[in-house]
Amino acid sequence: MKDAQYLLRPVGIVHSSLRSCEGCPKQGGEGAPDAWLEIYTAFTDALDGIAVGSNILILTWLHKGRQDLLKVHPRGNPNGPLQGVFATRSPDRPNPIGLHRAEVLEIQKPGRIRVRPLEALDGTPIIDIKPVIPESDER
Amino acid sequence: MKDAQYLLRPVGIVHSSLRSCEGCPKQGGEGAPDAWLEIYTAFTDALDGIAVGSNILILTWLHKGRQDLLKVHPRGNPNGPLQGVFATRSPDRPNPIGLHRAEVLEIQKPGRIRVRPLEALDGTPIIDIKPVIPESDER
Repeated sequence: MKDAQYLLRPVGIVHSSLRSCEGCPKQGGEGAPDAWLEIYTAFTDALDGIAVGSNILILTWLHKGRQDLLKVHPRGNPNGPLQGVFATRSPDRPNPIGLHRAEVLEIQKPGRIRVRPLEALDGTPIIDIKPVIPESDER
Repeated sequence: MKDAQYLLRPVGIVHSSLRSCEGCPKQGGEGAPDAWLEIYTAFTDALDGIAVGSNILILTWLHKGRQDLLKVHPRGNPNGPLQGVFATRSPDRPNPIGLHRAEVLEIQKPGRIRVRPLEALDGTPIIDIKPVIPESDER
């Protein structure tokens, strides 16, 4: 098991005005813009049940993240203490999966969904979408 | 991008009394037991900053999930309507990533962590751990 590897396939891509890490808010609630999710045609059937107003969790592959770092300075502050990446939301982590909570604002056609907020760079691959479950995610 | 693939490496494994899907609660809050997380030695430095009482998100690879299903009967009820897997927490999904919120109850040595609740089968690979961020995950 320890040496196993698993293959992720992107199910879509983020379209956003965020073009570089320098301009990124650290968390979605800190001023991230609206973004469009483009879900590839092969996967749009999996969206059935998601509607305007739905609160969703978007899982992304943070393709700019470094996979070889186990400790980072939280929030990029070089004067702060180092912390294990599992205790931070840093994009640098062994498996650079991003987790973003957002609200569905608009569904333009199957597979094209506007959400807010989303602190992910333009071009970030989407690997999963899940509904928020209040009793599990909000307690 | 559409045809890209990404490699996940397990960073640890779940040890649990849950041995088969039949015995699984559907969500952690519905009676899941304590479980032990074993984080592999190569990754234990990434745990620095996680303490007893921490609320964490555990991302797993639901290795029993079917990756070819786009619609399912939610909660396994065959009489219910089919729904897109992105609108459910089904383990059957294109990338079978599980997301579990739990509290750290005990840290026995670096890399051996008892948590509750965790509705994951014994032997489930762990692919990431993140801290809960109240303003992002609880709003």
